Amino acid sequence: MNLEMIRAAYARGQGVVRRTPLLSSPFLDEIAGKRVFLKAECLQHTGSFKFRGGWSALSGMDPEVRAKGVIAFSSGNHAQGVTLAAKMHDTSAVIIMPKDAPRVKIENTKALGAEVVLYDRASEDRDAIGAKIANERGLTLVKPYDEPFVIAGQGTCGLEIAEQAAEEGIEHAEVIACCGGGGLTSGIALALEADAPSFKVRPAEPEGFDDAARSLSAGTIKRNAALSGSICDAIVTPQPGDITFPIMNRLCGAGLVVSEGDCLKAMALAFERLRIVIEPGGAVALAAALFHGQEIEADTVIVTASGGNVDKAVFERALATLE
Amino acid sequence: MNLEMIRAAYARGQGVVRRTPLLSSPFLDEIAGKRVFLKAECLQHTGSFKFRGGWSALSGMDPEVRAKGVIAFSSGNHAQGVTLAAKMHDTSAVIIMPKDAPRVKIENTKALGAEVVLYDRASEDRDAIGAKIANERGLTLVKPYDEPFVIAGQGTCGLEIAEQAAEEGIEHAEVIACCGGGGLTSGIALALEADAPSFKVRPAEPEGFDDAARSLSAGTIKRNAALSGSICDAIVTPQPGDITFPIMNRLCGAGLVVSEGDCLKAMALAFERLRIVIEPGGAVALAAALFHGQEIEADTVIVTASGGNVDKAVFERALATLE
Repeated sequence: MNLEMIRAAYARGQGVVRRTPLLSSPFLDEIAGKRVFLKAECLQHTGSFKFRGGWSALSGMDPEVRAKGVIAFSSGNHAQGVTLAAKMHDTSAVIIMPKDAPRVKIENTKALGAEVVLYDRASEDRDAIGAKIANERGLTLVKPYDEPFVIAGQGTCGLEIAEQAAEEGIEHAEVIACCGGGGLTSGIALALEADAPSFKVRPAEPEGFDDAARSLSAGTIKRNAALSGSICDAIVTPQPGDITFPIMNRLCGAGLVVSEGDCLKAMALAFERLRIVIEPGGAVALAAALFHGQEIEADTVIVTASGGNVDKAVFERALATLE
Repeated sequence: MNLEMIRAAYARGQGVVRRTPLLSSPFLDEIAGKRVFLKAECLQHTGSFKFRGGWSALSGMDPEVRAKGVIAFSSGNHAQGVTLAAKMHDTSAVIIMPKDAPRVKIENTKALGAEVVLYDRASEDRDAIGAKIANERGLTLVKPYDEPFVIAGQGTCGLEIAEQAAEEGIEHAEVIACCGGGGLTSGIALALEADAPSFKVRPAEPEGFDDAARSLSAGTIKRNAALSGSICDAIVTPQPGDITFPIMNRLCGAGLVVSEGDCLKAMALAFERLRIVIEPGGAVALAAALFHGQEIEADTVIVTASGGNVDKAVFERALATLE
């Protein structure tokens, strides 16, 4: 896994992957007490940065292998990213999803053309289900984060951040990334090491699922106690990856940990001040910038809003936090 | 009013005015039965295209005149655009707003630094109030649409549409613009006449406030019967402008007219499929594309989402239309 793979993924994505805008609002700056810029990955195809990794993986695959189809495990965003990338490459996708994934994500994944196989998180072994289908049909597994081509795709977000920060005249910043398995965080960290070496990347996570923060603090991989039960479903993973963690450990600053209430408030402020829709897991970085300023040294913060696939009911809970 | 003024406004806005993204979703294409692209002006500074006109007017003003301050009439979006542009030019803004403007727009305008003067639409003469203040203080009036520098600023949205459509490989399209007084519609029409002459621009309006559609049909300016009472507050104006109408009459196709219910549904679909927040007046063009396809010949439609400054309560009404 290296910078050249990110640059190659960027080249393969030209004209396909959206260059998402870097947004800001004086109202958010005032709340945070510093300048806040938001990389709106909720506006990426399929509504999250995961399309970057999906496109990178599919476009980087041997065409004969790709033609047999791909398979992925995902609670939703990786599923949609891989499915659309597969469709655009005229091949098929099987997606193994937990039964309790947000309805909108399951439905969208099907509507984009995937064959969705649902499993029960508590009683069934998704790896066994997936391996059986993959073997029977000759499908290639596209892992959600611990896979170099996927990390390379997510890293293209970092290349864009470096470009856009330069356009805004930003010379020093902390870059806070919503962190699940660490694909986005490690990809951005590698990209910025090269293109904006004065920037420090830090992962953000929800309380109770702060495996990255604890792993960085310990210098070794730590697991989460629970594997479900967060509204931040998009970024709940068992632990940082074997490929992503060493990169994060070398390049990232300390993790930031926010409450679900902070996430809902950040979603509401993104609605009101930036006119974008972000999901709880995509709001952890903004929540950290807005409500944990005392843990951030830099006077400029760039946050990723990693996704916007949220059920109406959850979004209404966020809106209810406005006054 | 001519193309060169639009190109000059574009040059003055470089590095300041946001190049808003052109978004799309296969789900919206399916509903419309054609390809739909959305120019997300809700992501412009202050949450609407009006910042383009405000910036153009302020940046094009004689510095000594500008230093004395500006004044504007607005239900909210023009107010915020002019106020932020004034602030960025280190001058002051007085904004005359109707008392029944959305609360979020009044509060934001004040918070951005304007002196807000409220008036009663039914009983008070806003022109008289404005003229008195302007004369007393030597302020320059920035009209919301019937002003060449403002139209030039709105027209920069059209230059971007032409560029982005070319990037997407779009050769023929109908471009549907949310239309109040016609500043955005006429500005886009002038820009596309030069840079994408195969595109046809059409205004979209809410039922009961379809002055542009009736004026285009008659070939002469027609007034609205009512001046308030629409959730599409941003685009309720008495009639097309004396400068904007001749441009629209020369260049635009027939107007499209949508119901408030269509607007709310379009807002909900923009939430769900594009992850953006649009206000009712900013949703009329998308509503026309999605629900009035039988009135649209082209197989590709580009709509403006002109603004996203919406009170929570109205947005919740839109969300309630989802299933």
